[in-house]
Amino acid sequence: MMIPEQRLRMSESDIPVVEEMHPYRWGDPSRQIRLPEQVVTALRGLGVREPFRPPVEPAEIPLPRSALPESALAALRAAVGYNHVSTAHRDRIRHTRGWSTPDLLRLRSGDATDAPDAVLFPGSHDEVLAVLSICEQHRLAVVPYGGGTSVVSGLTPLREGFCGVVTLDLRRLDQLISVDPYSRIAVLEAGLRGPQAERLLAAHGLTLGHFPQSYEGATIGGYAATRSSGQASAGYGRFDEMVLGLTLATPRGGLSLGVAPRSAAGPDLRQLILGSEGVFGVITSVTVRVRPRPRQRLYEGWRFGSFQSGVEALRRLAQDGPLPTVLRMSDEAETAVNLADPAAALAGGPGGCLAVCGYEGEAADVRDQRERIDLVLRSAGGEPLGAGPGEAWREGRYRAPYLRDPLLDAGALVETLETASFWSKLNPLRQAVTDALTSSLSDAGTPPLILCHISHVYENGASLYFTVVCAQAEDPVAQWRAAKAAANAAINDAGGTITHHHAVGFDHQPGYLREVGPLAIEVLHAVKRIFDPVGILNPGVLLGSVHRDVTGRGASSGGDQVRAE
Amino acid sequence: MMIPEQRLRMSESDIPVVEEMHPYRWGDPSRQIRLPEQVVTALRGLGVREPFRPPVEPAEIPLPRSALPESALAALRAAVGYNHVSTAHRDRIRHTRGWSTPDLLRLRSGDATDAPDAVLFPGSHDEVLAVLSICEQHRLAVVPYGGGTSVVSGLTPLREGFCGVVTLDLRRLDQLISVDPYSRIAVLEAGLRGPQAERLLAAHGLTLGHFPQSYEGATIGGYAATRSSGQASAGYGRFDEMVLGLTLATPRGGLSLGVAPRSAAGPDLRQLILGSEGVFGVITSVTVRVRPRPRQRLYEGWRFGSFQSGVEALRRLAQDGPLPTVLRMSDEAETAVNLADPAAALAGGPGGCLAVCGYEGEAADVRDQRERIDLVLRSAGGEPLGAGPGEAWREGRYRAPYLRDPLLDAGALVETLETASFWSKLNPLRQAVTDALTSSLSDAGTPPLILCHISHVYENGASLYFTVVCAQAEDPVAQWRAAKAAANAAINDAGGTITHHHAVGFDHQPGYLREVGPLAIEVLHAVKRIFDPVGILNPGVLLGSVHRDVTGRGASSGGDQVRAE
Repeated sequence: MMIPEQRLRMSESDIPVVEEMHPYRWGDPSRQIRLPEQVVTALRGLGVREPFRPPVEPAEIPLPRSALPESALAALRAAVGYNHVSTAHRDRIRHTRGWSTPDLLRLRSGDATDAPDAVLFPGSHDEVLAVLSICEQHRLAVVPYGGGTSVVSGLTPLREGFCGVVTLDLRRLDQLISVDPYSRIAVLEAGLRGPQAERLLAAHGLTLGHFPQSYEGATIGGYAATRSSGQASAGYGRFDEMVLGLTLATPRGGLSLGVAPRSAAGPDLRQLILGSEGVFGVITSVTVRVRPRPRQRLYEGWRFGSFQSGVEALRRLAQDGPLPTVLRMSDEAETAVNLADPAAALAGGPGGCLAVCGYEGEAADVRDQRERIDLVLRSAGGEPLGAGPGEAWREGRYRAPYLRDPLLDAGALVETLETASFWSKLNPLRQAVTDALTSSLSDAGTPPLILCHISHVYENGASLYFTVVCAQAEDPVAQWRAAKAAANAAINDAGGTITHHHAVGFDHQPGYLREVGPLAIEVLHAVKRIFDPVGILNPGVLLGSVHRDVTGRGASSGGDQVRAE
Repeated sequence: MMIPEQRLRMSESDIPVVEEMHPYRWGDPSRQIRLPEQVVTALRGLGVREPFRPPVEPAEIPLPRSALPESALAALRAAVGYNHVSTAHRDRIRHTRGWSTPDLLRLRSGDATDAPDAVLFPGSHDEVLAVLSICEQHRLAVVPYGGGTSVVSGLTPLREGFCGVVTLDLRRLDQLISVDPYSRIAVLEAGLRGPQAERLLAAHGLTLGHFPQSYEGATIGGYAATRSSGQASAGYGRFDEMVLGLTLATPRGGLSLGVAPRSAAGPDLRQLILGSEGVFGVITSVTVRVRPRPRQRLYEGWRFGSFQSGVEALRRLAQDGPLPTVLRMSDEAETAVNLADPAAALAGGPGGCLAVCGYEGEAADVRDQRERIDLVLRSAGGEPLGAGPGEAWREGRYRAPYLRDPLLDAGALVETLETASFWSKLNPLRQAVTDALTSSLSDAGTPPLILCHISHVYENGASLYFTVVCAQAEDPVAQWRAAKAAANAAINDAGGTITHHHAVGFDHQPGYLREVGPLAIEVLHAVKRIFDPVGILNPGVLLGSVHRDVTGRGASSGGDQVRAE
């Protein structure tokens, strides 16, 4: 079989780093998207009407006065340098909350009440340790901050009991510390953005292969702290599977883990820090598995007559192999809308469900894999659509976050959520979440359009990723809160995990508690008390509130956030 | 290329379950081994002389009087049934310590001072919970016990501060609870021995694929509690990679984890329980990934001119694939001795280093894999030796533990130890451990024979497994303790992990502390205090001692065991 010679068009390491994002408009300002006319028409069909007021300009958003005591400010400046402590309006606004739709809606409406009192830019692991010590002493809550792309309120700690909140922006921790090509290992500092890390590794002929949708903004440390999973997870694995070691800065000192790929030396403590969302410490560097840069890439589209027949095909590849580098499938609704190519959106298309199979590697491996996968997909009822839809997806793969801003401008509510489960539970889980969202939003008078895709497959199960679009109600934050609560309850009831790759933050705490149970949460509080006896690190995130006293001996109460159920 | 049609000779599910092992002679009594004459001659060359006294017969070994208070005994009998609480000499002797060479030497010499005061055989998760509650109330230390095959003193808790020690033998938890072939998942109770689990799964056409050398004796719960790794780890993964969920019984109640293959819902708590060696709770069931039983097997031998050239070949397969089901390589010394086939031992052979490549699966997959791996190994300088040495290894793969008994009878000291590291550190690590063992044992007047193999490979590194043979000194337990301490220090210094698949127990505690640091140990003590406030579970194992008080609020001190360095 002939494969057309594919030119390596723009590679992930060529994607420009966005030095400073707009506080509520995603990504590179030169790549902003205008909604195509047919999308605007479709939105009208959903009852979307232009909002009464345009968003408040960032410079006009009022800020609470910085609550930082002068003594703390002086100590912090001494620790990280005068120029690396900022209380400027611009910096505080930019570090207010994250990138969930409710976060954006609040900032657009001019609400920056959660802004930190200062933003710190430490330049090393030791400076992070020094900052934590000062913050403990001055009772300042600390928000570890990578790209700021949390969509689960992971950057908005509880302030109660603290004299202030400082954000620890890790962007100056941007070095490739070491490379061991023989073992295929690299040590990366936590503040590196995805494109920066890829560029540094590309100079050694290597790649990390981690390409989440937030790639332009998110950082290595954030990937680790939230168990990120990238669009090429079928080939490269999740980020938590890439991590061989890590360094953590805590108020009690440093912790360094990982001397071998696998070990039987007790519990795997790396897996206790991964996903800890900044509440145990600040991840300052990560030792990761790296791979040679692929020399060829080929992305192809496949059509399946139904979601279920596509699921069968994906399951066969996940269980019996081979797995391509990228494997994903949209349901009928998402296939019709085609988020990756809004210009073609709603334009019809082949119907059914579009799957994308991406191959990356040496030319011979790509050819070999493609031949073998071709056989499996055909025998599972797939219809090959060629490179067109595959490459269109690849070109548009980071575009969805750009689409949100004009949708919000147009008065639509758009948000995503995700889960995962074992193969046998996947269909009922998808149905339950769809029903819950439909019912909640229809009851609010805003019937939604719900799109779903599978983007991460495992031998024993897969993820489900939902995109929801409807008209904004009068209070869109409350509108989404109710829909999200309904979806979370449906996920718990159907036995899915409350989050496959977005993390817990605040938004998933009730579901997280239901998933792991109160004893597990109590264990995590106990771990936190060792690393962070005063409880300054991202208080309330992941675990809910915990009673503290000045002796540094916290007593776990669980707190309302977690114990509500 | 033609592949000779391979008959599936004895499969792992056909291996008989050894209902009751001899207290210090491994395995099936009908499969005991006599040392071939050339081995006896070789031992004389090492200075091995027959010991002064033969081992004490089990029935003759004196036991301390059972210290169990009558009230505790009555409560335990009420909880699990009269017949499932034993203080019989036979049961207490059989549950004394584990299967390390020092453990065997002590029992052979008639020392059963570590025998438990009673052995309990609970029949369900709820009965385990009830037992833990009674033991907490009566201040009885509890040893969770699967197959009893620990080689790291993991079954010999500290008695100080307790009224007695009871062993919780889980053999009655022997059910396959459920199977989900669509998701390739099974739920297995913790007391199932390897062959029992395989037989239950085989009835569904499935296999777990976990075949450690202790397969005939070890259990599902033990695999999980110690992060076991089997001989087919290249194809099936380590046990900790097979676990999708687990149920833990603790003095604070039950904990059930794992609703999806992967999740971003906080730290991966499954990985906190895996490797916890019975100090957090009793693992009562495990949800594991299973696979279709292979229809064809083929094991082949390869010769490499040097260990280093073989390492290169293994690294290429581990990094660029494909990986066979079994991949291992002996160094020159181990190749010459040929532990798997003692009848042929020391008989010469091809020289160099013997590698074994095993393929299991559908006939077409085996053929395809073999062709592709053949190309890689040839281009890496491997010389194919055909199925003979491969099948000989497969047939003899569980024989090494049988060999130890006649070696000890003959007056030899024989023991194994293992580590793992990244590829770039593997050679210096191997050299350092070899030097440390050679130097310690030669200084004791008993120069050793040291054999080494690689049996587990990963993209970023591999394991090293050492077998040491020398003459027994007057106090062989002290002789080995010194050699082992030297090896452990060498592993730490060379940057390896203190254990790749044997676990920590007591024997690896100083090295474990050096590997993860005191803050990590403090975290694990804090976790233990939540699950086990009075500290009854395997006290001292894994974490060293911890101060306790009767209020149940333990205060971590680390203890001498761990804090010695």
